[in-house]
Amino acid sequence: MSTTEHPSESGAPVTARVRDLAEHVGAVVTVQGWLANRRSSGKLHFLQVRDGSGVVQAVLRKGAVDDELFKELDTLPQESSLEVDGTVKADERSPGGVELGVTAVRIVGVAEPYPITKGVDGDSTDFLLQHRHLWLRSSKQAATMRVRSRVIKAIRDFFDGRGFVNVDGPIFTPAACEGTTTLFEVDYFGESAYLTQSSQLYAEAAAMALGKVYTFGPTFRAEKSKTRRHLTEFWMVEPEVAYAKLDDVMDLAEDFLVGIIRDVVADCRADLELLGRDCDALLAMTRPFPRISYDEAVQLLNDNGHPFEWGGDFGAPDEAVLTKLYDKPLLVHRFPAQVKAFYMKRDPEDDRVALCVDVLAPEGYGEIIGGSERADDLQFLLDQIKLHELPQEAFEWYLDLRRYGTVPHGGFGLGLERTVAWLCGTHHIRECIPFPRMLHRIYP
Amino acid sequence: MSTTEHPSESGAPVTARVRDLAEHVGAVVTVQGWLANRRSSGKLHFLQVRDGSGVVQAVLRKGAVDDELFKELDTLPQESSLEVDGTVKADERSPGGVELGVTAVRIVGVAEPYPITKGVDGDSTDFLLQHRHLWLRSSKQAATMRVRSRVIKAIRDFFDGRGFVNVDGPIFTPAACEGTTTLFEVDYFGESAYLTQSSQLYAEAAAMALGKVYTFGPTFRAEKSKTRRHLTEFWMVEPEVAYAKLDDVMDLAEDFLVGIIRDVVADCRADLELLGRDCDALLAMTRPFPRISYDEAVQLLNDNGHPFEWGGDFGAPDEAVLTKLYDKPLLVHRFPAQVKAFYMKRDPEDDRVALCVDVLAPEGYGEIIGGSERADDLQFLLDQIKLHELPQEAFEWYLDLRRYGTVPHGGFGLGLERTVAWLCGTHHIRECIPFPRMLHRIYP
Repeated sequence: MSTTEHPSESGAPVTARVRDLAEHVGAVVTVQGWLANRRSSGKLHFLQVRDGSGVVQAVLRKGAVDDELFKELDTLPQESSLEVDGTVKADERSPGGVELGVTAVRIVGVAEPYPITKGVDGDSTDFLLQHRHLWLRSSKQAATMRVRSRVIKAIRDFFDGRGFVNVDGPIFTPAACEGTTTLFEVDYFGESAYLTQSSQLYAEAAAMALGKVYTFGPTFRAEKSKTRRHLTEFWMVEPEVAYAKLDDVMDLAEDFLVGIIRDVVADCRADLELLGRDCDALLAMTRPFPRISYDEAVQLLNDNGHPFEWGGDFGAPDEAVLTKLYDKPLLVHRFPAQVKAFYMKRDPEDDRVALCVDVLAPEGYGEIIGGSERADDLQFLLDQIKLHELPQEAFEWYLDLRRYGTVPHGGFGLGLERTVAWLCGTHHIRECIPFPRMLHRIYP
Repeated sequence: MSTTEHPSESGAPVTARVRDLAEHVGAVVTVQGWLANRRSSGKLHFLQVRDGSGVVQAVLRKGAVDDELFKELDTLPQESSLEVDGTVKADERSPGGVELGVTAVRIVGVAEPYPITKGVDGDSTDFLLQHRHLWLRSSKQAATMRVRSRVIKAIRDFFDGRGFVNVDGPIFTPAACEGTTTLFEVDYFGESAYLTQSSQLYAEAAAMALGKVYTFGPTFRAEKSKTRRHLTEFWMVEPEVAYAKLDDVMDLAEDFLVGIIRDVVADCRADLELLGRDCDALLAMTRPFPRISYDEAVQLLNDNGHPFEWGGDFGAPDEAVLTKLYDKPLLVHRFPAQVKAFYMKRDPEDDRVALCVDVLAPEGYGEIIGGSERADDLQFLLDQIKLHELPQEAFEWYLDLRRYGTVPHGGFGLGLERTVAWLCGTHHIRECIPFPRMLHRIYP
C-alpha cells in the first residue's frame, strides 16, 4: 500500500512491513499487525508481532506507554490486532536481524480466546482444516503460502520469458477427456457440462494459433481416494508447443524445474528453512536430470528387489523405489501406450510405447509432471477414439487441428500443489493450497 | 523451445520465430508455421507464413526449389503447415521490417479446404464461435490473445512487485456470497457445492494471515443475460489489503490501471494498432484519475439531460453518459449501501452510503473494478446477515475474521475480460477469452 512507500507527511512514523525493517534501522516506524505471541517479565513485554510478511519482536519497557495500556498488553489475547510504533534496532539474535524498541502501541481489535493453540487436543488435523481461515496465520502455513505464490511467479516468468502466450482453458467442458468416472457434472442451463480435468486439448488448439502457449488454472477430479497426494481441486500449468518433439518436451521440463528451484530458493530461503528444507540440496538439482526409459525403469525395479511386470503404470510405491536411486528429479519416458492417454503419439521405433514422459520428484513425492508428444495423424486419432469408445462428435473440434495444418507438437502438465509439497517438504498436499477441497471437505 | 535458442549443430539453419526475425537479418533461418495467405505471379510466390508470433512474407522464386514443389505451393490450401528456410532481408515496407528470401520449403501437413474465409456467409458470429479453435488463428483474435496474456502478466507483476502474496480462492464453495439465483450448483459427492462468484471473502481471510494478498482465477455467474459484457465464466483478480482504508483502495486501483496500460502498450503496440487502438490515447491516461462521489455522479447525470434518481445502481446507459465526460477511467465512490454488498463498511459521515468505489472505463466500456473498505465490526455483520436472510452458519468462518483481531481492510475485484475488451477496443467480451462460455455455448 501507499503507506509503506510514501514518507508520512504528518510527522507520524512511516508504516513499514516486517520483512523490510532491516532497511529502517535507526528510524521510528509503525508496524501494523497481530499479536502472535508474548513473554513478559515484570517490567518488560516481549511482543511477537506478525504482519503477514514476517514476525518481529517488539520490546516494551514499563513507562514507555501509560500504565493502563502496559497492563492491558500483559493479558491481551493472541491474535489481537495492534499498531506498534518503535525504533528499529539491529539485533543479530533476532530472525530478520532486527527488533523494535517500542514507543507507542495502539490496540486495534481485541481478540476472543484464540482456538488454535499448540499442544491441546483441539489441534487435530480435522480441527485445523475446519479452521483453515485461521490456521493460515500459523508460521508454517503462511510460509507455505508464500512459497506457493513464488512458485506460481517462477512458473509464469519462465514461460513469459520464452515467448509463450498464456491462454486459459475453459472450466466448463462439454465432454470428458479421459472417461467420466472422475468428472464433476454441472447443470448448465439444462445441459450437462463437466468441470475440466485438463486444458491440454484446448492448449493444443491455442498452440496451433499462437505457437507456444500455456494454460494455468484450477483442475478438478472427483476422485474418492483419500491419499496425501490428492485434492478434488488443484492447479495445473500446461505448456504446449507447436513443432516440439518428445526430446524438446523433456528439455523444456528440465529447464523449467531448474528455473523454479533457482527462483524459489533465491527469494524464499527463510521460509523454506523454517519448513525444515535443505536449500542447498535443492540448488544441487542442476541439469542434466537422469532420463531413463520405462523399460529401464522396470529393469531397475526388478534389480532392486521390487518385482514389477512390464505393462502396468507405476504406483506410489514403485515411484518411491525409483526416486530413491537419484537425488534429482527423474524423467521416465516411453511408457506402454495402454496405460497412457489416447492422444499420445506412438514411438515409430516401438508401437507398443507412447512418446511420453513422467517426471518424478525425489524423496517419494512422485509424479509432478506428465507430458508427451501428441499424435498428429488424423486417422490414428479417429481409430483411437473408436477404440476407447469416446464420442467422436465431442472431439470434432480437436480432430480439426489435424485436418487444418497438422504439425508435430507436444507439452506437459505440472501439478502446482504437488510441486509445492515437494519443494516445502510437506507431507500432505492439502497444506499446499489455501483452501483445500477434498472428499467431504468444502468448508470454509 | 530450445530450437530457437541454440544454434544448430548440424549446419541446418537456426529455427527462429517471426517476431524475432529482425535479429537475424542476413542469416538463413527456418520458420515453422502455417500458410496464412498467398499471392502468386508466374515466377514468384509470395507466401504469408504465420507462426503464432507474427506473419512474415516469404518470397519464393521459381527455380529456388524443384518445379513440382513450386507448383504444389501454387495451390497449397490455406492453413497448411510448412517449414520455410530463407534468408532474412530487411524490408521497410513489410510489417516487422523483414521478409524471407526462400531457399527451401518443406510441406508438413496439407490442410483440407479451410472453413473460415472472409466475406462468405459462413463467417457469421455463431459459425466463428462454433469454430473458435480455428478462429483463434485469425490475426485479430491472435492479437487479442497476446494482449490478454500481457495484461495477465502486468496484473501479476504489479502485485508481486508490491509484496502481495498470490493466494487462490476455492472454486467449490459451500454457500452463496450474494444470493443464489446466479449460482452454478455442483453435486459434490452428494452434497451441494456452488462455483465461486468471487474469492473476496477468502481473500479477506488470507489478508489477515499474509497482510497483502491477491486471488486471480475463474469466476462463475449463471446469468441468463445475453449482453456484450457478460460471460458465464470469466477471470477476476481480487487484491485485499489489511489495514487499508477506502482512500488506499482507490490509490491502489489507480496505480494498478496506470501500470497495466504502461506495460501492455510497451509490449503490445503492434497488436493494439492492428486492433485499431490509439496507444497514445491510452498512455495519456496518467494519474490522477477523476474521482467523484455517487452524489456528484447523480448530479452530473441530471445536469447532462439524463434524469437519474438517487438510490439506484448505475446501468450501462448511465455509465455511458458519465464516462463520456472524461477521457480517463472514472472512480465513483460512496454508493447507496442498499445497492451494494452486505460486507461493505458504511461511511461514518453518512450511514446511507457504503465506503465503496466503482471504476468505469472510458468509451462506455463500463465497470471494470468494484471495491470497498470492508465492515470490520462483528455486530454490524451479524445484523447484515440477518437483514439479508443469509445463512449465518455458512459465514461463521468469515465472522471469525472479526472475532480474532479485526482490522480495517479493503480491496477490489477487476474483471480481466472487460479490461482486455476496453484496452483492445473489442465490442463483445466473448472475443477476449480463448474459449468463451455463454448461455447455450460450451463448445468447443
